[in-house]
Amino acid sequence: MSLKEQMTGLAKRARLASRRLAAMSEAEKNRCLHAMANAIEANAEVIQTENAKDMAAGREMGLSKALLDRLLLNDDRVAGMATGLREVADLPDPVGRVLEESVRPNGLKLSKVASPIGVIVIIYESRPNVTADAAGLCFKSGNTTILRGGKEAIHSNQIIARTMAEAAVSVDPEFPQDAIQVVPITDRAAIPELLSLTEYVDLCIPRGGENLIRAVAECSQVPVIKHYKGICHVYIDANSDASMAEEIAFNSKVHRPGVCNAAETLLVNEAVADRVLPSLSKRLTENGVELRGDVTAKTILSSVGIPVSEASAADWDEEYLDLILSIKIVANVGEAIDHINNHGSGHTEAIVTNDAATAKRFQTEVDASTIFWNASTRFTDGGQFGMGAEIGISTDKIGARGPMGLRELTSYKWLGVADGLIRE
Amino acid sequence: MSLKEQMTGLAKRARLASRRLAAMSEAEKNRCLHAMANAIEANAEVIQTENAKDMAAGREMGLSKALLDRLLLNDDRVAGMATGLREVADLPDPVGRVLEESVRPNGLKLSKVASPIGVIVIIYESRPNVTADAAGLCFKSGNTTILRGGKEAIHSNQIIARTMAEAAVSVDPEFPQDAIQVVPITDRAAIPELLSLTEYVDLCIPRGGENLIRAVAECSQVPVIKHYKGICHVYIDANSDASMAEEIAFNSKVHRPGVCNAAETLLVNEAVADRVLPSLSKRLTENGVELRGDVTAKTILSSVGIPVSEASAADWDEEYLDLILSIKIVANVGEAIDHINNHGSGHTEAIVTNDAATAKRFQTEVDASTIFWNASTRFTDGGQFGMGAEIGISTDKIGARGPMGLRELTSYKWLGVADGLIRE
Repeated sequence: MSLKEQMTGLAKRARLASRRLAAMSEAEKNRCLHAMANAIEANAEVIQTENAKDMAAGREMGLSKALLDRLLLNDDRVAGMATGLREVADLPDPVGRVLEESVRPNGLKLSKVASPIGVIVIIYESRPNVTADAAGLCFKSGNTTILRGGKEAIHSNQIIARTMAEAAVSVDPEFPQDAIQVVPITDRAAIPELLSLTEYVDLCIPRGGENLIRAVAECSQVPVIKHYKGICHVYIDANSDASMAEEIAFNSKVHRPGVCNAAETLLVNEAVADRVLPSLSKRLTENGVELRGDVTAKTILSSVGIPVSEASAADWDEEYLDLILSIKIVANVGEAIDHINNHGSGHTEAIVTNDAATAKRFQTEVDASTIFWNASTRFTDGGQFGMGAEIGISTDKIGARGPMGLRELTSYKWLGVADGLIRE
Repeated sequence: MSLKEQMTGLAKRARLASRRLAAMSEAEKNRCLHAMANAIEANAEVIQTENAKDMAAGREMGLSKALLDRLLLNDDRVAGMATGLREVADLPDPVGRVLEESVRPNGLKLSKVASPIGVIVIIYESRPNVTADAAGLCFKSGNTTILRGGKEAIHSNQIIARTMAEAAVSVDPEFPQDAIQVVPITDRAAIPELLSLTEYVDLCIPRGGENLIRAVAECSQVPVIKHYKGICHVYIDANSDASMAEEIAFNSKVHRPGVCNAAETLLVNEAVADRVLPSLSKRLTENGVELRGDVTAKTILSSVGIPVSEASAADWDEEYLDLILSIKIVANVGEAIDHINNHGSGHTEAIVTNDAATAKRFQTEVDASTIFWNASTRFTDGGQFGMGAEIGISTDKIGARGPMGLRELTSYKWLGVADGLIRE
């Protein structure tokens, strides 16, 4: 069988399975999710045996220590997958929510109702626990998943998916086994083949580094919701509380510098730079943060003996994911907005200001998924937003934007009800 | 300048202009829309002079009478563009609507707010009045448009766009002239070039025949919302009112057979086929409808002397856009749903039944943008849905689905407000 035939078969089966999922009630889905969680716990040993094959192959391949650590399914991580599935079962079913309702003048009762998307391809890197998390979220939202993890995790991913599907069948004989499938081929050519099948695949969500996401987006014929990098900014306005500004900027940079909602660039209004920068920068450098300032920021900081290098043009477009912060002094909020719209990645932006009109302007004119007023950039997160769980954070504008929880994994339908209505 | 440079310049200017639009108030936008409408009326003669150039070239090219008719901007059509723009001005601004609101346990006030998408490319065929309609809807929803009409309409499209942009500048000097641009190059290669610019273009909406839409979708790197064909079905259930069924089926087929929400296939439950089909089919044939039935339908109709040919396998996948109807007898609602999900185009489906449980099942399990219970398929329409105007009807599931009005031309942002909140 050719690669094309294999991928077509896989995707067709996913499409057929998706029709059965669309008909499942919340109670049925939750029973399956609990059975999946129980089975993952009960089969921990088998899962870990398969994982050991991946680990051994990974060592042989010379994977880095960091990658091997990501690949490992220790007891905690196996338990974590089960807990995650139970948490998803506890979340409200996003399907069937009425989003809008109206009665038209002719008596037509019209409602816009959340519905499953259908078939979702998830492409991800090393961590095999993503298999359970992603499949669980997609299943609860009525979607079938085709999972394509890293080739180094193929045994782990397959056993997890099989354990979940078999557990669901054991409590619901009508559960379609093909609702959760792992692409069985590690050949890279499988991806463009799969993503050309617009008739059977509705959406692709790539998760991982920028290169992976770009490669997927470039080859895909099906819609892709991208989760690109986070070049997030904190802007400290002229009219702002210095200690609040310091707390928010510090938290946005230092709390967890390796994640996408950490700040990479600080913008400071020139009217308060002298007052705000020295104390904040001292605290940042004391906590190991390397500072890269524009000429004005460098002058201010050097004059008070704080180490700072000069930012290059490339700094404004870089996601450090590290204890590094670039600093730029701006004349006003308009300049801050322009800088963000030119250099930001559409992820998360924050303003610190006491002025409601300035905050409103910033929140209106900045083009990003999430814009905070007097809060740290670190709050862009499905858990913090009350979504319970997230499959990622979209930097796209079509379909979901920002954190994607269960609701963001649905589409909608228009349902019309009448009593024999025809158009005159 | 290379094609790539020209397209990049165009798209960059559209991106810059979109930032200004995001900041415009509803009142400012409406003032511009009224000025545009007035200018189109005032410049009717100039517009018609430019249109005459296209008409002359079209005649020389040997365009068909139908295409020449579509291309013509007579007095009515010019007046129609002005009226359309005033109607858009009267519609509520979709930007800034609060879609969800919550206060998180930590005090973070979170809201999900409709925002412009940004830069939208509209690709369409002959009718130059689409230029005004599409640009008006996109502008009101805060988006800049890059318009790419048929090459035979280039003079008409350019004068309409220029008239609109200049009128807006005349009442609002800050209106960005680049908010409405027509691709000045008729070379087909311009399209893939433009649709590779993911940094500057957010969305493409192709309008026209299936070939155009497929070609656009295949070459595009930016998201595309597709408006494919409508293979719409009416299913008459066992438990249904015969006269209601007849009215709905007749209306769905005959009211306006050349549009996408007209029915192409009738599905009839075998329990009522004998009772429903003869009278309905008689009326259909009397009104010029050609019938193509499966074996059972053919037997029933032939026995009462109604002319019917046998449907081929290809009939179930065909959008006739004409007075032709295929008829299939099904054993139950499940078979109807399967047929629709296998052969429908995800546009509009209707069920006629007195049974609420059957209707609910049909509306849940059929995968389409719009599903009517006891109403004609002909109601899938922005005007009928109360949208005021529509840019088309999406058969996609990511982003907008079904009729696309102003709201469907927006994305959203998450806005968070707190009082110095940091993450612990």
